[in-house]
Amino acid sequence: MAKNGNISTSVIKRLPRYYRFLGELEKQGIERISSRELSEMMKLTASQIRQDLNCFGGFGQQGYGYHVASLRDEIGHILGVDKEFPTILIGAGNLGKAIAMHINFGTRGCRLAGIFDANPRLTGETVGSIAIRHTDEIEEFCKEEHPVIAVLCIPKANTQAIADKLVELGIKSFWNFSHYDLTIDHKGIEVENVHLGDSLLTLTYRTNQLGKAEDE
Amino acid sequence: MAKNGNISTSVIKRLPRYYRFLGELEKQGIERISSRELSEMMKLTASQIRQDLNCFGGFGQQGYGYHVASLRDEIGHILGVDKEFPTILIGAGNLGKAIAMHINFGTRGCRLAGIFDANPRLTGETVGSIAIRHTDEIEEFCKEEHPVIAVLCIPKANTQAIADKLVELGIKSFWNFSHYDLTIDHKGIEVENVHLGDSLLTLTYRTNQLGKAEDE
Repeated sequence: MAKNGNISTSVIKRLPRYYRFLGELEKQGIERISSRELSEMMKLTASQIRQDLNCFGGFGQQGYGYHVASLRDEIGHILGVDKEFPTILIGAGNLGKAIAMHINFGTRGCRLAGIFDANPRLTGETVGSIAIRHTDEIEEFCKEEHPVIAVLCIPKANTQAIADKLVELGIKSFWNFSHYDLTIDHKGIEVENVHLGDSLLTLTYRTNQLGKAEDE
Repeated sequence: MAKNGNISTSVIKRLPRYYRFLGELEKQGIERISSRELSEMMKLTASQIRQDLNCFGGFGQQGYGYHVASLRDEIGHILGVDKEFPTILIGAGNLGKAIAMHINFGTRGCRLAGIFDANPRLTGETVGSIAIRHTDEIEEFCKEEHPVIAVLCIPKANTQAIADKLVELGIKSFWNFSHYDLTIDHKGIEVENVHLGDSLLTLTYRTNQLGKAEDE
């Protein structure tokens, strides 16, 4: 059904949200939903929703709305939730542990295969059911388990060097939580930088604007 | 200098990244930078950069580029990094602890005033230098300390109810890490939802596309 060749990044970025909302509707036992109803829930315009979903072939039927379960299945399939990309996580501090638990429970599309930390005192400690290994073991692990995705929860200073090494070891995609803007010049590598600080700063900006509006 | 009345959300979302990159340049002792050089670093077009920075009044001088330190100061001022909005964090699991440390060290614009968790076994444990309090104490704390920002690191099921309560207690802005899409119908409230799962799903999508490209 999907005609997804070159879909714009902004549409792709909205798909997981559609997937979540449709999951909620399914849980509530709702079978069909119109683009208008979906738009009210998701605070998007109905025409935006029709446009987005049109990228993947016509899901909706004029006058009948969308079939919740099949739309969700199709979007899930496009997103790759039925995949199990083997994934490693580097850096088992509080953030790394939180992200590891997040991947372990309820996340689809990837399977956490290993957790690594440079601190030998953490070696052997378990997160979920996975024992933390020393970073010295990454190379051997990659050669045996062939992980595809690496999650980086490490200090900024080490990020580029570790990422370069991991590319050599076969990693194709990075989910990067370090404060370093990871850029990889190899072809065929994907990077998703998560800058929590940037997200908070946009909120303090808006909080600041609220105060100004009140002063006026 | 700033002429920031109604700046589009997409420009605002890019500002923290400018702020970070300019901070790096300042650390490296670089005084001036052209929009072309900045565009190469940031993987944006030079005209995009000129357009963005024009929103706030002309920072650059034709032929001289931007003065790194003053541009960074001005952007920081616009973002509100010189503010200290009192902030509370609810939910002191691994993620909550990681976020608390993040706010405590190196984040500007807000000051972590209190951490709360419903689990009485966590009461009194410290994160950074802040003792975790029981959620029963939130109301009294808000009446005394008047926090403005709340960070929610709590399970999905409780989010809307806690957020509604916090609005009554004077909270103006939410940084929401729960899996619940927080929407607040009161006027003058800001919400920044952080959906880590969505970010990972866009990465698994792109990883999946890589595999397909290789198969072709």
